[in-house]
Amino acid sequence: MVEKKIDKEEVWKFKEYVCRAKCFDIRAGSRVAILNRSDAYSNDIYENHRVVLSADHKELVSIVDLSNDLVRPGEVGLFIELFEELGVREGDPVKVMHTSRPASIDYIKKKMDGHELSHLQIDTVMEELMQNRLSEGELASFITSLYIRGMTDSEVVGLTQSIVKSGEILALGKKPIADKHCIGGVAGNRTTMIIVPIVAAAGVYMPKTSSRSITSAAGTADTMEVLAPVALDVSEMKEIVLKCNACIAWGGAMKLAAADDKLIRIRNPLSLDPKGVMLASILAKKKAVGAQYAVIDIPVGRGAKIADPHEANRLAHDFINIGKQLGITIEVLTTDGSDPIGNGIGPALECRDVLSVLAGGGPADLRDKSCQLAGILMELCGRCKKGDGQALAADILTSGKAMAKMRQIIELQGGNPNVTPESISIGGHKHRVIAEKTGRVSFVDNKMLSKIARAAGAPVDKGAGIYLHCEQGDKVKEGDVLFEIFAESESKLDFAIKALEGWNPIELQKFVLSTMK
Amino acid sequence: MVEKKIDKEEVWKFKEYVCRAKCFDIRAGSRVAILNRSDAYSNDIYENHRVVLSADHKELVSIVDLSNDLVRPGEVGLFIELFEELGVREGDPVKVMHTSRPASIDYIKKKMDGHELSHLQIDTVMEELMQNRLSEGELASFITSLYIRGMTDSEVVGLTQSIVKSGEILALGKKPIADKHCIGGVAGNRTTMIIVPIVAAAGVYMPKTSSRSITSAAGTADTMEVLAPVALDVSEMKEIVLKCNACIAWGGAMKLAAADDKLIRIRNPLSLDPKGVMLASILAKKKAVGAQYAVIDIPVGRGAKIADPHEANRLAHDFINIGKQLGITIEVLTTDGSDPIGNGIGPALECRDVLSVLAGGGPADLRDKSCQLAGILMELCGRCKKGDGQALAADILTSGKAMAKMRQIIELQGGNPNVTPESISIGGHKHRVIAEKTGRVSFVDNKMLSKIARAAGAPVDKGAGIYLHCEQGDKVKEGDVLFEIFAESESKLDFAIKALEGWNPIELQKFVLSTMK
Repeated sequence: MVEKKIDKEEVWKFKEYVCRAKCFDIRAGSRVAILNRSDAYSNDIYENHRVVLSADHKELVSIVDLSNDLVRPGEVGLFIELFEELGVREGDPVKVMHTSRPASIDYIKKKMDGHELSHLQIDTVMEELMQNRLSEGELASFITSLYIRGMTDSEVVGLTQSIVKSGEILALGKKPIADKHCIGGVAGNRTTMIIVPIVAAAGVYMPKTSSRSITSAAGTADTMEVLAPVALDVSEMKEIVLKCNACIAWGGAMKLAAADDKLIRIRNPLSLDPKGVMLASILAKKKAVGAQYAVIDIPVGRGAKIADPHEANRLAHDFINIGKQLGITIEVLTTDGSDPIGNGIGPALECRDVLSVLAGGGPADLRDKSCQLAGILMELCGRCKKGDGQALAADILTSGKAMAKMRQIIELQGGNPNVTPESISIGGHKHRVIAEKTGRVSFVDNKMLSKIARAAGAPVDKGAGIYLHCEQGDKVKEGDVLFEIFAESESKLDFAIKALEGWNPIELQKFVLSTMK
Repeated sequence: MVEKKIDKEEVWKFKEYVCRAKCFDIRAGSRVAILNRSDAYSNDIYENHRVVLSADHKELVSIVDLSNDLVRPGEVGLFIELFEELGVREGDPVKVMHTSRPASIDYIKKKMDGHELSHLQIDTVMEELMQNRLSEGELASFITSLYIRGMTDSEVVGLTQSIVKSGEILALGKKPIADKHCIGGVAGNRTTMIIVPIVAAAGVYMPKTSSRSITSAAGTADTMEVLAPVALDVSEMKEIVLKCNACIAWGGAMKLAAADDKLIRIRNPLSLDPKGVMLASILAKKKAVGAQYAVIDIPVGRGAKIADPHEANRLAHDFINIGKQLGITIEVLTTDGSDPIGNGIGPALECRDVLSVLAGGGPADLRDKSCQLAGILMELCGRCKKGDGQALAADILTSGKAMAKMRQIIELQGGNPNVTPESISIGGHKHRVIAEKTGRVSFVDNKMLSKIARAAGAPVDKGAGIYLHCEQGDKVKEGDVLFEIFAESESKLDFAIKALEGWNPIELQKFVLSTMK
């Protein structure tokens, strides 16, 4: 049953009063205005109400907190987000106004009740999200409704377009534009930093934006940052890509697909990732850089994000289908996600793997997987015949062209182009984890390794992490080193060792399961 | 699709550090701790993380905000909620600790996925809600899931019991204990303040808790407050009820059914009232005062909260059924909710109506409805034969026993027992709304009248509101006064008159609908 909402705010819309700004050096994580209690009450404003603050022709919606003394009558307390966005300083005048109820609330309710939303309605929700007019609770309710009710293809396409519209757009032109994405969940697996220079060396634009780690030991942005700054804006990105065909930037610093960051903030605390939102979130970032071709990597298996191959197949079909409606040609690869890719886990250690592969060596699994993915992208872009992509990628790698391209990217992003794998510094405190028995490695636990690497300081401490000395299927002998933990301080190393206690991230299959006599 | 959550916090559980409290006079509406940014980062704490704060053997979970300068290294900034609850003052030591993921998140997900929750799981969610361990988003997600998925009877019973357990319990004993509830949505309709003294005069306990207005012009607590203080705690309530059988207190000041207030805070911004949560919320308040008998008033009709009589019937069955499982005998009345009850709308004006009825006069609709409801309660409690209740209630009213009982309640709650209807002061600024034509009153708009009364200052200004001079079915002539608006200041009266512009809360049916020639 739903209580009919009385639009009280409509009545009050024209009420307003002017205050002086009092600025607080607090980042509230959302827009919060602190009003003096008696000021607020006499204007019929209460805790958790929404008001519009206006200064210098800017208007922002914000949530209300009240104070008796810290904020005196005639003042409005502003946290960092607000005074920066309003562009006001201590003592500047700010107008406080009543605001009407966001239209989104009706659309959130509509979806909750199981009805399809139109593109226009989805657009309204995303616009009000961008204006910070929706509370955390309203957004959580929206995401929960999308999760329970599911999304139609039309809704996913609409959401993707709304997310694209919420931010800036990269316009390149002329050469084909390619992108790639991995669903994640596999430790190491830093293929992007190998695929991008290979494909760019083949004359294809790859304006790559990547994320920082949320729960893993490193994201591509964290790893690339070992080599060069990654916080580019869209115009810097464009300049670099026009010069060398590619970049590897941090998506969070850009204003591409801006609504997506806000959606992610809501999804994370609930670990809630409705399929349609995930599709829209990924594809909006591709669309915003103008990608025409994309390869999607879906790791499947024990310990990966997606354990069930059938689910992976359904997801693959969705990507291809929605991509088509958005004008992006997509090829999806389901890959083995049960085992880490590469030997390093943590920004600097993964970076060493990447540079080693680009230099012609490095871990075979990382090299081969990267060449397969790069090959498919080059096939999609018409750079070679279907079936010849992987060999072309391997050629570009062996010829040194990929390494040269990577050095160009590093230099244009402001890093040292002469970097070598050995010159990358790794945490000076290390601990070796030894096999307690002889056996074959039957399982390597991605998640547990990520946890331990994080406990050691990754991704904030770039040199912290894990170096694997074995992979699934290897035979190890009692006393062999299974992996090493690296940290930048003794205390963090201790902490990681403590975190490891009682856990067994490398499972060994016994050759003799039991004996009887 | 659901991303598997990595319980990173588990790893960090044993991290902690000690800070000095820095107290801010800000009521944040939830528990927010401001940490110094570098302190936080070096302890792997980020914006919107949850931490446990510990001081003086108390532990509270709080959300993290970060500051560079306002909160210096070694300090923790505390808003009012936190420093009061922790019992610390400026400079006191506070321990900051990592915290594990609330168990509730799994149960919220379980419900989201359409599975029934056990009583124990619901209990856990309510416990973590009470510990403030759940964010606004997580709670909104829970309520949204309950709304979309619905609740089984067992879940409603479990939720009711958990809500009861979350607060204090009133233990009276000996006499039968009765309660009443109205679903609301009808302007005026202040029956509680008449039913309570009638039933109490018949020797039944009526420990009544009422709410303040949310969207209407007055709640029972707002109206009773005109006569006496209503912010009683449970022990004061018990003392008063043992002396005179009844009280009329504000539920919000009590610690009865404490979780309910928190649930309401989440439901309101979304205007979301899942049936099961509404049932549990209402019945928990009855159960917490030990009620054995209850009458529920469901107003139905145009403009009321429930427009559809079938929906009202279904709800009635639910009340009776769930009540039975909780040991409460319930009788439900669906009543005509299309028209205001009484003439006054707003605390003081409604209070005048109530006292006039208790004095033997007053609006007939208010008197009759109150007697019917009080009669049914007395029948349920065995104070008279089935069918004799209304007459008994009228007797108690006419004899003056109800007024005497009310004066006793007013005195025990700390008000003036010699109050008369005329002694209640009404806003000195008034405006008459005149019939522009002759006709029969075909509809009186409850919601619109409430809005105008609120625009005039109700319920904060006790003397503000509306006095109705007509009701549905009345014939009025052009120039007759339809209603008067009262306000405590000229500016608020102007505001109410402005709010009325273009609106027509009293609809007149024309006798001649059209003419042709």
